[in-house]
Amino acid sequence: METTLNNTKLATFMNVQEFLEHWQGHRMLTRRTIAAFPEEALFNHAIGGMRPFAKMVMELLGIAGPGLKEIVSGDSKPLDEDFKDVTTKAQLLKLWDIATGEVNEYFQEITEERFQEVFNLFGMYENKNYCSILYFIDNEIHHRAQGYVYLRSLGIEPPAFYER
Amino acid sequence: METTLNNTKLATFMNVQEFLEHWQGHRMLTRRTIAAFPEEALFNHAIGGMRPFAKMVMELLGIAGPGLKEIVSGDSKPLDEDFKDVTTKAQLLKLWDIATGEVNEYFQEITEERFQEVFNLFGMYENKNYCSILYFIDNEIHHRAQGYVYLRSLGIEPPAFYER
Repeated sequence: METTLNNTKLATFMNVQEFLEHWQGHRMLTRRTIAAFPEEALFNHAIGGMRPFAKMVMELLGIAGPGLKEIVSGDSKPLDEDFKDVTTKAQLLKLWDIATGEVNEYFQEITEERFQEVFNLFGMYENKNYCSILYFIDNEIHHRAQGYVYLRSLGIEPPAFYER
Repeated sequence: METTLNNTKLATFMNVQEFLEHWQGHRMLTRRTIAAFPEEALFNHAIGGMRPFAKMVMELLGIAGPGLKEIVSGDSKPLDEDFKDVTTKAQLLKLWDIATGEVNEYFQEITEERFQEVFNLFGMYENKNYCSILYFIDNEIHHRAQGYVYLRSLGIEPPAFYER
């Protein structure tokens, strides 16, 4: 892999505000994707032995808010994606909105230096903090796209990907 | 949407080298995803009226190399995702590798100021260049994840998402 750059080595690709706006755009699209599911299919429809979309969303809920909180506090805890009391779309959307508020709150607490520090997230994923946070978004895009296929297989048009 | 930051407004989230390494990690994973498909399914298997994965990959091929080239040159052309001569997995993987080289080459030519400039990509997508480039990766993750569902529906284990 040839990734060495010449004289632009330390140029900024994006600053923290640009990154947060990018992330929140994705979070709004994921919210619309959850909302697009019929309630029964959200919790039960799946393809090829995969999880229903609600379970994927629970994983995302276990990561974003709690993960950022750890990065701020430095206090690592095991990943918890078990939301067994959540059985309705309304509950899931409410938790999503709470997590969006937590993302906004905790992200602002992270300093430029802290983004570059190595941290053992959830006590098991050792990485630079900015890489862990990129992974949060990548993982959200990844599972949401799987939700798109579930929706298509149900004959439902997913929300437009380019609208944030 | 509350995204205003306090005193960290202009802190760097990631620099250009970190971004390029992140992108190339994704490109390697997408390559492994293409390779995981049986040749016939790559060009013909689909769910819910969507395109086969080969067609999604052709879209990605039409975007990354040509898109970066436009951003460098400032010379806009229509998006071309029509690769009708490509009928084998080997051809697709070869084009993927060529595009990876183009990404490395053109990305280095983009200055910090240029990332912030507004440009009418492919003559129809007006956005700041760093946003367009983020979209390239997001779109790749999105379609690759749809390929993961196709693979699962065929009983094939996709490559590990966290390996880059």
